[in-house]
Amino acid sequence: MNFGVIGYGYWGPNIVRNLRGIEGSEVVAIAEVSSSARTRAQKAHPGVKVVSDAAELFKSPDIDAIAVISPVWTHYDLAKAALMNGKHVFVEKPFTSNSAQGEELIELAESKRLTVMVDHTFLFTGAVRKIDELIRDGSLGRLYYYDSTRVNLGLFQHDINVLWDLAPHDLSIMDYLIKASPEAIVATGQGHLNGHEDVAYMTIYFPDKVIAHINVNWLSPVKVRTTLIGGEKRMLLWNDLEADEKLKIYDKGVDIDSREGVYNLLVSYRSGDMYAPQLEQVEALRQELSYFIECIESGSRPFNDGQAGLRVVRMLEAASASMKRKGELVAL
Amino acid sequence: MNFGVIGYGYWGPNIVRNLRGIEGSEVVAIAEVSSSARTRAQKAHPGVKVVSDAAELFKSPDIDAIAVISPVWTHYDLAKAALMNGKHVFVEKPFTSNSAQGEELIELAESKRLTVMVDHTFLFTGAVRKIDELIRDGSLGRLYYYDSTRVNLGLFQHDINVLWDLAPHDLSIMDYLIKASPEAIVATGQGHLNGHEDVAYMTIYFPDKVIAHINVNWLSPVKVRTTLIGGEKRMLLWNDLEADEKLKIYDKGVDIDSREGVYNLLVSYRSGDMYAPQLEQVEALRQELSYFIECIESGSRPFNDGQAGLRVVRMLEAASASMKRKGELVAL
Amino acid sequence: MNFGVIGYGYWGPNIVRNLRGIEGSEVVAIAEVSSSARTRAQKAHPGVKVVSDAAELFKSPDIDAIAVISPVWTHYDLAKAALMNGKHVFVEKPFTSNSAQGEELIELAESKRLTVMVDHTFLFTGAVRKIDELIRDGSLGRLYYYDSTRVNLGLFQHDINVLWDLAPHDLSIMDYLIKASPEAIVATGQGHLNGHEDVAYMTIYFPDKVIAHINVNWLSPVKVRTTLIGGEKRMLLWNDLEADEKLKIYDKGVDIDSREGVYNLLVSYRSGDMYAPQLEQVEALRQELSYFIECIESGSRPFNDGQAGLRVVRMLEAASASMKRKGELVAL
Amino acid sequence: MNFGVIGYGYWGPNIVRNLRGIEGSEVVAIAEVSSSARTRAQKAHPGVKVVSDAAELFKSPDIDAIAVISPVWTHYDLAKAALMNGKHVFVEKPFTSNSAQGEELIELAESKRLTVMVDHTFLFTGAVRKIDELIRDGSLGRLYYYDSTRVNLGLFQHDINVLWDLAPHDLSIMDYLIKASPEAIVATGQGHLNGHEDVAYMTIYFPDKVIAHINVNWLSPVKVRTTLIGGEKRMLLWNDLEADEKLKIYDKGVDIDSREGVYNLLVSYRSGDMYAPQLEQVEALRQELSYFIECIESGSRPFNDGQAGLRVVRMLEAASASMKRKGELVAL
Repeated sequence: MNFGVIGYGYWGPNIVRNLRGIEGSEVVAIAEVSSSARTRAQKAHPGVKVVSDAAELFKSPDIDAIAVISPVWTHYDLAKAALMNGKHVFVEKPFTSNSAQGEELIELAESKRLTVMVDHTFLFTGAVRKIDELIRDGSLGRLYYYDSTRVNLGLFQHDINVLWDLAPHDLSIMDYLIKASPEAIVATGQGHLNGHEDVAYMTIYFPDKVIAHINVNWLSPVKVRTTLIGGEKRMLLWNDLEADEKLKIYDKGVDIDSREGVYNLLVSYRSGDMYAPQLEQVEALRQELSYFIECIESGSRPFNDGQAGLRVVRMLEAASASMKRKGELVAL
Repeated sequence: MNFGVIGYGYWGPNIVRNLRGIEGSEVVAIAEVSSSARTRAQKAHPGVKVVSDAAELFKSPDIDAIAVISPVWTHYDLAKAALMNGKHVFVEKPFTSNSAQGEELIELAESKRLTVMVDHTFLFTGAVRKIDELIRDGSLGRLYYYDSTRVNLGLFQHDINVLWDLAPHDLSIMDYLIKASPEAIVATGQGHLNGHEDVAYMTIYFPDKVIAHINVNWLSPVKVRTTLIGGEKRMLLWNDLEADEKLKIYDKGVDIDSREGVYNLLVSYRSGDMYAPQLEQVEALRQELSYFIECIESGSRPFNDGQAGLRVVRMLEAASASMKRKGELVAL
Repeated sequence: MNFGVIGYGYWGPNIVRNLRGIEGSEVVAIAEVSSSARTRAQKAHPGVKVVSDAAELFKSPDIDAIAVISPVWTHYDLAKAALMNGKHVFVEKPFTSNSAQGEELIELAESKRLTVMVDHTFLFTGAVRKIDELIRDGSLGRLYYYDSTRVNLGLFQHDINVLWDLAPHDLSIMDYLIKASPEAIVATGQGHLNGHEDVAYMTIYFPDKVIAHINVNWLSPVKVRTTLIGGEKRMLLWNDLEADEKLKIYDKGVDIDSREGVYNLLVSYRSGDMYAPQLEQVEALRQELSYFIECIESGSRPFNDGQAGLRVVRMLEAASASMKRKGELVAL
Repeated sequence: MNFGVIGYGYWGPNIVRNLRGIEGSEVVAIAEVSSSARTRAQKAHPGVKVVSDAAELFKSPDIDAIAVISPVWTHYDLAKAALMNGKHVFVEKPFTSNSAQGEELIELAESKRLTVMVDHTFLFTGAVRKIDELIRDGSLGRLYYYDSTRVNLGLFQHDINVLWDLAPHDLSIMDYLIKASPEAIVATGQGHLNGHEDVAYMTIYFPDKVIAHINVNWLSPVKVRTTLIGGEKRMLLWNDLEADEKLKIYDKGVDIDSREGVYNLLVSYRSGDMYAPQLEQVEALRQELSYFIECIESGSRPFNDGQAGLRVVRMLEAASASMKRKGELVAL
């Protein structure tokens, strides 16, 4: 499988390194508009063709698939050109700048029988796989809430707000884990520096009283990456910054008793052991790219396909609309 | 100064112990409806009169001031009766069940020239005093945001939602620190067990792009008490569960440069030392009750007076209304 | 059971409060040489007789048992006088200033059929009870090492070194958990301020290659209370400063393979889940004092008896001797 | 400057990568006895000659300097051969297996006017540089103690004990920071698996009551990398596993008052702010290798020269001897 990679900024080098490390996969060309980034690419990968114009990749008969690792506003044009030229496409998240673009790309890929994968890398980590298992096998019980905090100082992007920059991680994980369709979104936020919101909060309403909340912030003095998930039977805390013990599962919960009188508590608390399961030590991106190759070869549809990417984009669109109107409820 | 204390549940014993420990202050009677709590009170304080009917306290000519440490729905009636009988009043937070009650109590106290204090204990901690100092002296610079998380498993209250139970802490601190008047509130949440919301989120819009957010949750497997405050010059993290280093101040920030082009970052980050100032080691409640006595004696108005209590109640009312209508913006 | 308590400094108030809280137990008198401490005692316990001379307690026919909560150099005289007057004795740790004193007290108590208990409070905590269970039931497998760190700034005592001040906690816990008899001790340390060592390290050799090490320090800027215990099957970390998750048990270990050659590793590592068991939430001192009363009433010998206290004193003696001679091995 | 690198196991790849990244430096050959490691080396560095026999490097006229990154028992032979052939030498730590070897290499290098550097990488980290600055400028005041803990599960080496594996880090840092000459060493330890000690403790006595202690352990379920340094004026905690705030400096200390009487404390504690200075973000190994090249070019002697390496080897020898004789004091 021969790859072309467009974009060699922050994330592109990881894509190239991993694709080159997979048996049977090769990167034949890299396109990048910045000359200094091209120099870096060429130095790190002497045998690979490095060009400034992505069009060279679309035209190349040697290339089977193209990875689009450039800013979000370029995704639609680049992915469309790749698909039009018969290339499978791996697109950085968020998938597209709006849902209409996403829908069009999905349709185009289907009509050409090409595979589209959106880079929701976290779905391939040991932590998310383990949480998924705990939800699937009933360990957590009925879900109550999903509450994620993803804050740090920067990376400030100048062309999108903090929701589009940081929340795609959380939304793609939440979409994968909860599986139900969200009903409506409320978002609030504020921009202090360049016109785009740098602090933002999203509430997502799901059926059956499941509620999700995402706190993203570019102006935090400390880096936080924590997700709390509460279920009827168990609750968990995922702290992605912990070297070990990233995932802690608490045998804790609440039982409701019948109402007895105004001064009595109605509830009792269960509190038991905590355990931190050992997680698979895999490089998630390597796993994801191997899976992309497998899906292309077998013709099967990846779970992180264009539809998954589109669901995330629709939530981002709804959240941006809600945020602009100060928390107005936007149905999905 | 002779005190009567109404309510000897979770917080009442701390009030009694502290009042008795202050030079020149004495507790002469405790009223409590629960007989087991009365037994505990009598055992701990053999010399103090313990009764079931609060009316005995209102009538007693020996009592100068009454502390109302009972559930929120009883505050209005008890505080009103105390004021009608010429007693100064110290009321547990939140002040009242609604703003009309709060307004009436304030008016009544003024007409009788009596002192009302609302128990916003946190304002007397070393951490909040230090943060206030850092804001006042310009160390943080122009404020950007105030973001607080206060979650744990229980204490579940059956007659109010989690906002009314946990957010008064954050709202009273925020009100004290930010000082500006909030313009509008958006709140979301969900109840899973007994009809009251057990998970809730509030966004509070202030003038000049200051935004505040409060995350409260009765269903969290872990206890969290953290507040992030971001300013133009410095940012801070207050973790109230740390034994030492509760407050960390970061010499970090963002500087905006002029726009240069679509691929260039618009901002630069300043990153310097962190320091954790030594905080005053005081028992906040003792300080607050001493201040109450001072205010009564001097006739001066406490900063945590009925008006401060009312401001918090108004935010809680607005938040509850917003939450019921799924995040509808409620102006203040 | 009527108690007299000698010493109302730092720890005495906890003894009095707990003894008074136990059904069927009462404190009838407190002896304390400091007049300001006597005033505090009298204020907190108006109904209790407070005296300056401990002799009044020994003579009192109302008193069944005496708690000696005074500095270590006074233990022997006070405990001896108590026993001579037919009182059971509860002695603060370390038991005595030297082993000869301890032996004499044990003999005296036996000849008079009186109960002696040494206040090894930690043995009654949920954490130590759980660790003991894990060792007893084979969960840890054969023990490899016991490694404890107990450091903080102060409390500096002027009449003993840091080993006698802090290590009795660790030694009593180690003695209880390991059960085997230590063979020899090596200790090193240094005094920087008043002639007594303020930084000290002990290695204790046990049979079967079990090794223990204790690090105590009065000059540490941070407080640390951690114990690592390594076994063939599992290993654990006990951090007593954690509010929750004090005890973490790791399914980790090392397996030795046959030697293959100089460049191959000889060992493989097992790494599995971690779990933090819920610990009993008990006030350890209350449990210990109840157990003291039970032992007196039933005539049974407590496991933290004079012999347990003496074993700790012997280790302290050996360690002090070793430390004076810069780490010379001292057999036990 | 052309380099040959001997050893491409765990650390060798970092040496090669960094040498190749330095302007004006190139790696022309790698020697490695393991064929699978040679394959890895060749794949990562297609243009570099990879051989099995180190002799090819010694003979090569193209090579100016050789990095010896192989097991410690091979250092002496390889470094000697390199020096005999006129190559400058960079040797992995510990320098040699015994002090006689180290002395001989130093002499040989001097007679041939060649540069020897021992890879004490930590001396080039932002943390150690900052601590050195704090000691030099008097911020800490007179030193009291240096106490380091370096424990984890593995990496178990089969030909040396845990002291020789882990303590060289601490000893080289301590040697650099304290600068005084240690007077004597006491070490204890125990081996549980393959005849070599896997748990070990060292106390190092310095003049002027400075004491150092090092705790190393291959059988710990958790990884710990902390160093406490106590001084008369300030104290610090260096936790190398923290992503931010690796170094915390405490404005804490102890003041001794004149003796007043047996019940009065002799000391008072100063407790002030803590601050965590921002540390230089440098890749330490890159800095060290650049410094090696500079020293060769200028003919100046590096501070981490053979003498520094020899001082560490002497302490390891003394510690091993002491440990064998169960803590016998070994003078240096």
